[in-house]
Amino acid sequence: MSITMTLGKKARLARVEPLLEGKVLPTEQTVQALEAVLLPGDRVALEGNNQKQADFLSRCLAQVDPSVVHNLHMVMSCITRPEHLDLFEASIAATADFAYCGPQSLRVAQLIADGVLKVGAIHTYLELYARMYLDLFPQVALIAADQGDTHGNLYTGPNTEDTPVVSETTAFRGGVVIAQVNELVEPASLPRVDIPGDWVDVVVTADRPYQLEALFTRDPRQINEVQIFMAMIAIRGVYERHEVTSLNHGIGYDTAAIELLLPTYGESLGLRGKICRDWALNPHPTLIPAIESGWVRSVMPFGNEVGMGAYVSSRPDIFPIGPDGTLRSNRMAAQAAGLYATDMFIGSTLQIDADGNSSTVTAGRVSGFGGAPNLGHDPRGRRHSTPAWLGTGAMSTGRGRKLVVQTVQTYGAKGTPHFVESLDAVQAGKDAGLPVPPVMIYGDDITHVVTEEGVAYLYKARDLEERRQAVAWAAGATPFGLARDRSKDDMMRRDGLIASPEDLGVRRTDARRSLLAARSIADLVEWSGGLYDPPSRLRDW
Amino acid sequence: MSITMTLGKKARLARVEPLLEGKVLPTEQTVQALEAVLLPGDRVALEGNNQKQADFLSRCLAQVDPSVVHNLHMVMSCITRPEHLDLFEASIAATADFAYCGPQSLRVAQLIADGVLKVGAIHTYLELYARMYLDLFPQVALIAADQGDTHGNLYTGPNTEDTPVVSETTAFRGGVVIAQVNELVEPASLPRVDIPGDWVDVVVTADRPYQLEALFTRDPRQINEVQIFMAMIAIRGVYERHEVTSLNHGIGYDTAAIELLLPTYGESLGLRGKICRDWALNPHPTLIPAIESGWVRSVMPFGNEVGMGAYVSSRPDIFPIGPDGTLRSNRMAAQAAGLYATDMFIGSTLQIDADGNSSTVTAGRVSGFGGAPNLGHDPRGRRHSTPAWLGTGAMSTGRGRKLVVQTVQTYGAKGTPHFVESLDAVQAGKDAGLPVPPVMIYGDDITHVVTEEGVAYLYKARDLEERRQAVAWAAGATPFGLARDRSKDDMMRRDGLIASPEDLGVRRTDARRSLLAARSIADLVEWSGGLYDPPSRLRDW
Repeated sequence: MSITMTLGKKARLARVEPLLEGKVLPTEQTVQALEAVLLPGDRVALEGNNQKQADFLSRCLAQVDPSVVHNLHMVMSCITRPEHLDLFEASIAATADFAYCGPQSLRVAQLIADGVLKVGAIHTYLELYARMYLDLFPQVALIAADQGDTHGNLYTGPNTEDTPVVSETTAFRGGVVIAQVNELVEPASLPRVDIPGDWVDVVVTADRPYQLEALFTRDPRQINEVQIFMAMIAIRGVYERHEVTSLNHGIGYDTAAIELLLPTYGESLGLRGKICRDWALNPHPTLIPAIESGWVRSVMPFGNEVGMGAYVSSRPDIFPIGPDGTLRSNRMAAQAAGLYATDMFIGSTLQIDADGNSSTVTAGRVSGFGGAPNLGHDPRGRRHSTPAWLGTGAMSTGRGRKLVVQTVQTYGAKGTPHFVESLDAVQAGKDAGLPVPPVMIYGDDITHVVTEEGVAYLYKARDLEERRQAVAWAAGATPFGLARDRSKDDMMRRDGLIASPEDLGVRRTDARRSLLAARSIADLVEWSGGLYDPPSRLRDW
Repeated sequence: MSITMTLGKKARLARVEPLLEGKVLPTEQTVQALEAVLLPGDRVALEGNNQKQADFLSRCLAQVDPSVVHNLHMVMSCITRPEHLDLFEASIAATADFAYCGPQSLRVAQLIADGVLKVGAIHTYLELYARMYLDLFPQVALIAADQGDTHGNLYTGPNTEDTPVVSETTAFRGGVVIAQVNELVEPASLPRVDIPGDWVDVVVTADRPYQLEALFTRDPRQINEVQIFMAMIAIRGVYERHEVTSLNHGIGYDTAAIELLLPTYGESLGLRGKICRDWALNPHPTLIPAIESGWVRSVMPFGNEVGMGAYVSSRPDIFPIGPDGTLRSNRMAAQAAGLYATDMFIGSTLQIDADGNSSTVTAGRVSGFGGAPNLGHDPRGRRHSTPAWLGTGAMSTGRGRKLVVQTVQTYGAKGTPHFVESLDAVQAGKDAGLPVPPVMIYGDDITHVVTEEGVAYLYKARDLEERRQAVAWAAGATPFGLARDRSKDDMMRRDGLIASPEDLGVRRTDARRSLLAARSIADLVEWSGGLYDPPSRLRDW
């Protein structure tokens, strides 16, 4: 445990009370208030995931006097903004427990190496929340909401995300909850209440609305024909074959291509209603055509997506919508749904090794895990059955298995092979002094690898040797793939361990961009009936 | 999916509005209101777990006219009360998705066999909640709270439990939330808000306070010396050896004995601060001596326990306590903490088979799973390290493993062996037409078996054959244990696969009731400084 001075909530609040009017803190007094509330060694939750950021509060925190506030133990879903790391360089913070730091991965690796940032642990989201309830509850939480009233009630709009878990784990452990709001309103005038006022101690109007990242928006123009080809392979070789009705898609063009093929290629295969009904997923703009074509029964979102508000509100039959008519996302709940309620996780990766282990860590970077390890493993506590789950299970116990699919081209854009003998993550983990290599998804958790070579059905491998052979086959013309013993290919095909596009009835020449239900952002806007309002940088009209 | 007539929330509420004053429903109009709100085929969440029950609403639901309301699809944590099954016999309900039905397990099995109750699936708690967010969200939820105000705000007191998840999954999917409250109060007079009023549509004062079961109370007088002996074995052979700091205990005298040995035997071993610090656990009365002796750093509870309110409120340093000074439990959060944040699950069972699979299902009963499968498996999405987790892991990947411990005497009280060739669950599953046998915890998920013979370290078994030998050794003098090849015992001991009490330095003659920190309920009351207020049936003074 970090060294923590103990000071009760009342005593902390007494120190900041002179600055407050009721629960309301004047914007310009925020740095001073943080210096009053925080004690050296405090565990501090700073809200911010890969989408929504409590950035006014993080910018203010970076301005406190390090001689007053230092040695903080930060508990954060994501380290994403530059000032998150300024905290460490300025000696305001010393330790971090987190889940993801993609945009700052290079600097995080450097600060770890320099001994400036001490890693508590790198978690997956749900795991970090679980620890916040058990042993990492914060003394102070810095959160963000759309609106707050003078009683402390908060309205998060469609970006509820992490706010409930960060608030609850602090408010009910004698901690102080400080909320930045885009707008302060009178009591009883919030559109709805996402966080009850008695969980919140201080409300401050931010200097500008909290930052939002459009992380899950993929422009269909960027989807190429190799990705479309692989999407067709995945639909036939995985989705159709296993009758996958409930699923999560990772971020990326590979899965965006699948979403955009459902109303066209999927429809031609007669798969509507048979696959892809229930989704643990953010409101991906590329899912709009499938929703509008009647493919989707429900979506449980981790967060919102920029520009999707009006469209999502128009489909309360699909998305969780509050009495105010806007989305209620919930990152912890969606991670639970993606863990236990879905049959499949499919995502892309940067590297896959000979055993099938995959990672997005590359040399000199520590990027964390996000949600992938939680979504991308077989939850052995699951007890309900579906055809997809039963079909990949072990014959001996009757117990099923979650489908965990990695879809990746054999070579990356710059001619770098995605299949390697050993993951960069192994060395990166050693350099950062991590107790275990930062593997994103382990080979023995992966059931399928999809490449332009076809599908490797790893769950059918009877031993590590067979798994390695199937991975090497999927690796195609990479050095790793070429070095394999080709004499095994026929037997693997007979045993159903691998399937080529031909085996699956997919022709490369059919993989054309005209198959995409939407070929541009403008097409997505049209599918949405004009309700999708994309970020201006993605508009070309 | 069940056949569901679609009717929007507004239309449903319009049908019940004539009975309401604002959101308040007169108690005596409840049956009529349910007949107005419910439609045939509705998915209905009825709150009730193994502790708190929305029993006024379930009793009213059992009185509706089956010609008006029928074919309901019940989504319930637990089927525990007789009228829960009356719903099916009266044809009001047809299908159930649930997690546990222990007290009604015989009748559930009969109703399944008779075709009266159709099982959607039997889940573990967190899995059921996950599905409620994704594809089992209710059209109507019937929930229970301590107090409600006329705006619909709810105060759950220490029994928050499932109420947030049942409310959220209904309120944000266009469903109707009906809350029974022990007491109706004026707005702005609740001690705290657990559920915001805009999530709740109808509030009705119940005819009597909701039912609460004292399920986690174990009278120390019932703990015998064999259990104390096994507790000593577990402490030395598992807790101490693996430095288990975070954990969950199941219900039962075996683990209650461990709790009561910490301040005595554990103290004599110098283990305070080294084991058993952070707990995902209900407020077990038998944990009071350990808390008062400074063993416990934090407890995250699923629910409350009868009579523990005042004591728990006195320890806000240990338990999550609201601004009102009472516990805030949270079943979903505690299940997440028990899944991802703890190093060990230990529980008892009724049967263990040759492979180490265990189950509490016995012939003719379908009892469900509760939380055990979620708590009792290795969550392979976990990415943070602890000594306990690393120590049981695979050398090849460096990846650790959760400790999943089954503690059970070789023979039950009536001379029935707890070790069997084949689980009764297999036949019970066939009889009930379940797609997979209702195994509680699978043998390949179990890392340790503790019996009065000692500890079998199953995680060290290199193959199924070794696991079977170690299980058979732990089975001792049962027919199954006696039939083993005894020539392997020495080798297993050398390889660390098994350890006898002697190997662990535990003497049977030391296992005396005088070692228990509390030997009666009265002792527990004394440890609590008079704050623990046990149910009257447990008082003998």
